[in-house]
Amino acid sequence: MASHPFKEIQTPEQLRLLPPEELQAFAETLRQEIIHTLARGEGHLGSSLGTVELTVALHYCFNTPEDILVWDVGHQAYGHKMLTGRRKEFEHLRQRHGISGFPKREESTYDPFGAGHAGTALSAVLGMALSASNNKRQHIAVVGDASIANGMAFEALNHLGTTKANVLIVLNDNSMGIDPSVGALKNYFDRVKKEKSSSTNFFQSLNLDYQGPLDGHDLHALLKAFEKQKNNTGPRILHVVTTKGKGLPSAEKEQVRYHAPGKFDPVTGKLNPKQNHKKIKFQEVFGQSLLRLAQQNKKIVAITPAMPTGSGLVDLMNVLPEQCIDVGIAEQHAVTLAAGMATQGKIPFCIIYSTFLQRAYDQIIHDVALQKLPVVFCIDRAGVVGHDGPTHHGLFDLSFLSCIPNLYIAAPRDAAALQNLLYTAQLGIEAPLAIRYPRGYSEVETLSFDFQKSAWGKMEQLKKGSQIAVLSLGTMAKTVAAALDTLHESEAFAHYDLCFAKPLDEEMLQHIFKTYSAVMIVEEGVKHGGVGSAILEFSSRHQYSLPIQLEGVEDVFVPHGNASELLVEIGLDASTLAKKMELLLNKVLG
Amino acid sequence: MASHPFKEIQTPEQLRLLPPEELQAFAETLRQEIIHTLARGEGHLGSSLGTVELTVALHYCFNTPEDILVWDVGHQAYGHKMLTGRRKEFEHLRQRHGISGFPKREESTYDPFGAGHAGTALSAVLGMALSASNNKRQHIAVVGDASIANGMAFEALNHLGTTKANVLIVLNDNSMGIDPSVGALKNYFDRVKKEKSSSTNFFQSLNLDYQGPLDGHDLHALLKAFEKQKNNTGPRILHVVTTKGKGLPSAEKEQVRYHAPGKFDPVTGKLNPKQNHKKIKFQEVFGQSLLRLAQQNKKIVAITPAMPTGSGLVDLMNVLPEQCIDVGIAEQHAVTLAAGMATQGKIPFCIIYSTFLQRAYDQIIHDVALQKLPVVFCIDRAGVVGHDGPTHHGLFDLSFLSCIPNLYIAAPRDAAALQNLLYTAQLGIEAPLAIRYPRGYSEVETLSFDFQKSAWGKMEQLKKGSQIAVLSLGTMAKTVAAALDTLHESEAFAHYDLCFAKPLDEEMLQHIFKTYSAVMIVEEGVKHGGVGSAILEFSSRHQYSLPIQLEGVEDVFVPHGNASELLVEIGLDASTLAKKMELLLNKVLG
Repeated sequence: MASHPFKEIQTPEQLRLLPPEELQAFAETLRQEIIHTLARGEGHLGSSLGTVELTVALHYCFNTPEDILVWDVGHQAYGHKMLTGRRKEFEHLRQRHGISGFPKREESTYDPFGAGHAGTALSAVLGMALSASNNKRQHIAVVGDASIANGMAFEALNHLGTTKANVLIVLNDNSMGIDPSVGALKNYFDRVKKEKSSSTNFFQSLNLDYQGPLDGHDLHALLKAFEKQKNNTGPRILHVVTTKGKGLPSAEKEQVRYHAPGKFDPVTGKLNPKQNHKKIKFQEVFGQSLLRLAQQNKKIVAITPAMPTGSGLVDLMNVLPEQCIDVGIAEQHAVTLAAGMATQGKIPFCIIYSTFLQRAYDQIIHDVALQKLPVVFCIDRAGVVGHDGPTHHGLFDLSFLSCIPNLYIAAPRDAAALQNLLYTAQLGIEAPLAIRYPRGYSEVETLSFDFQKSAWGKMEQLKKGSQIAVLSLGTMAKTVAAALDTLHESEAFAHYDLCFAKPLDEEMLQHIFKTYSAVMIVEEGVKHGGVGSAILEFSSRHQYSLPIQLEGVEDVFVPHGNASELLVEIGLDASTLAKKMELLLNKVLG
Repeated sequence: MASHPFKEIQTPEQLRLLPPEELQAFAETLRQEIIHTLARGEGHLGSSLGTVELTVALHYCFNTPEDILVWDVGHQAYGHKMLTGRRKEFEHLRQRHGISGFPKREESTYDPFGAGHAGTALSAVLGMALSASNNKRQHIAVVGDASIANGMAFEALNHLGTTKANVLIVLNDNSMGIDPSVGALKNYFDRVKKEKSSSTNFFQSLNLDYQGPLDGHDLHALLKAFEKQKNNTGPRILHVVTTKGKGLPSAEKEQVRYHAPGKFDPVTGKLNPKQNHKKIKFQEVFGQSLLRLAQQNKKIVAITPAMPTGSGLVDLMNVLPEQCIDVGIAEQHAVTLAAGMATQGKIPFCIIYSTFLQRAYDQIIHDVALQKLPVVFCIDRAGVVGHDGPTHHGLFDLSFLSCIPNLYIAAPRDAAALQNLLYTAQLGIEAPLAIRYPRGYSEVETLSFDFQKSAWGKMEQLKKGSQIAVLSLGTMAKTVAAALDTLHESEAFAHYDLCFAKPLDEEMLQHIFKTYSAVMIVEEGVKHGGVGSAILEFSSRHQYSLPIQLEGVEDVFVPHGNASELLVEIGLDASTLAKKMELLLNKVLG
């Protein structure tokens, strides 16, 4: 990359000055730059390698940003970012104060709509098209085959087919989400690709013009198709077939592994050996424990909406395929499917990232909690997730779940607590249970499986103290313990693990409120409506008047960046908490 | 109905003893009983009239409750309820302690899954089918053409088509939701019905066997089809065409009006004249005001997910069709479509019932609030709705919305406040705004349109007082005022309208917390995470220690029944609040 070929190409305007015959070489430059940058810096590699030619062809043919171009999810948009004024900033992708890993309105006029969750592009683009003052502007949504099967994408298609909106859907079909795509629509796409035609046309039945399939790495074919589409109007689909990881042989071969591979060798593709982490991730603790339990208890069914790898479910899926279902990017269906299973005596474990659980909120209330069905929600990626940023942090779940009647919410502080909750849940529960745990490493280096029954709805005292009770939820226990370790007057602080965000252990809280001079509550979630807020309600109900201090996330969206640094920035690190504890103690001793 | 023909038929077992040639007469009896009962008692008439023959045929042919039968939404299930042990209780439909207007697991083994929101049946039934120990049990979901277009229904179809699950979908196609169905899929169904065949088969492309269309009022044809289906296995669709309101000419003719017509003459169908209500409903205040504003401001676009009639939007839709979009039962799409429009300078008003807004929770956070797009959410049916019960009360919105950064939440206490908020919103806002207002009557008898700009984020003092500040949100102002009117020591109580649930008017709150001896907060929503809870957080943050008493809905699902009676039951009526105010005053005076 020493020669920086085409380094002058920073914008679509500059790209359009190239003769068509140079585009293939430029595309290859872009691809190598993505590979070399991500090899050092980490990111979503595979999707963006697959869209290099598509990106070049779209910006070459269409008049962006006047013509609207929206990338669904946004994993695919690295090339787009580089081509739209952010080629230099690409070095700082996903770093705090660097550019986001996803399209983002604040970053560029070429990003007319932010993304991060799947299936939003069609609705957004249709809204833009219906707002256009003339029918000349083109509105292009690039949507993956895994995303287009999402419920909200279908709702948009169903609307789109009744309009004359100037919307071109580029179906970027690589047969993959993060994991391989699933579903009847995916199988239909496969038939179409095989037969190169579609006798029972899904899109045509929705009154949408369909063209394709087309080789998404054949720049010549893409240019020809887009030149034609430039002069078309109305709703239409162009089916483009791409290869995830295109251009890096190992990434083409191991598409799941190379979705976001961490650091690697840009030439050989060889992955960097595991870093210093000897610890085991919570995801592995979860997946391996559920596998053990599912081997013993045939009532257990694990349900994942398109996240088997990320959630640690791959072994369970391989070993016990009849007890693990990947429903695709379909969180709503996942939850109500689980509810249906629970009515029949199954013990469904519904594993969804905190941020994606927002997609199934009504189903949790209406289909699960109202009917008091014993579904176990395993809420992965709860808390700050880091580089994926505000679209992916799991900071709202405590608030949006705590207000739902009948629902239990637990947050294990460590690997053993998570294992014990899983074990206890599958023994049989009377009502739905949500277990939230973070992305990343637990405290253990080896897993054992001596499950113990959890004390249901009970707090646990971790440290004695004389003046102030610090109550922590989940893995904040570790941060609080670290903070207490640094304090000169550590003996003034008692430390309790709340264990459950709901219900509160009112007996223990009564004891605490009668014993100490002040209470501090620490949770990795937004303060409003969280567990601290529930304890304020407890205190008000029982007319206590001692000072209660909530530590959690303020009422702002947390940016992207290194997770540890973000925790410092939002004041949920040991050092900041230690200072706040000292201040509170001074006040109490006042 | 004097002779009560077939009165012995209370269960499917008894039905199955009838010879087939008597079924038509029995169906007619059932139909007349529905008509006569609803004529006196109110309920969802049209849908259930359309499914009488379907109900009889299904229970006659299939071995319910061993064979699973789930009615999507549940409006269609009145005949089912009567035929499954609840014919006598049908008299008390939707009354407190009477049977629910929707299928409900607690009521009957014939209701294997509760319903109320559209599109859940397919996921639930698939979950049950995948849990079945053998492939003999049949799993039948009756789904309307408006419901099947919902995103989560599509997610279920997409999964179903990859399985061998023993699921029969009866597509009950009456071309109606509450309002006429919309969407490309509906148009496709219309083509199929017209051509009696489907050359581009939507369902076949999803690997689902399709049979139909079939006349859903032809019992002979239904019996024949179901007898055949009894011996089939695997996922399959039977397309049945019905007429909403079937058998009552006025209901067939005016299908929207007779969806839930209130009381009427069972013979002529003539609707009862409007009762004593001279007052104007909030829905009309809303719809007429938005119409006026939209006539002046062409940037305004109203978006409704299948609720133009219920939301008061019909006039706007008729007068300004280009400024009003019904997207069908597609709440997720509605919100992100609005977000897309907002990026283009439109002022989208997204009108969704509180309970259905739960369906679009992720879109509110991820597509609207994170991008700070000025979408106006008009949250209809906020608070207790009455006879529709726990699936329809709007009691969670304050909690699930308050934790979202960037979002403003207002709750008008009366018609004028609602009008002024609508007016102020369309002048231009910097961030998304949610306006919540209840089902039912406002305080005005005539509408005027002298809009005033709302005081943004400011509380309003409604009454002076010396000891205790009562802060009410929204229409609870009226209840609080009524309570205060009855109090002997009324002068001790000041009354403030919070006006906004978010942001809090911190300046005024500082004044209040420094002035009074105690604070009571009254809201029509769950306590946890609501506005009272936010004020507790304010108090804790600023280290106030005066007593704060929250009045709202406890952590339970509120049942169905008369709304006023329910408010008494949950303690949000004037009399209960007056007693609580007295107690609080006694405590403060010590």
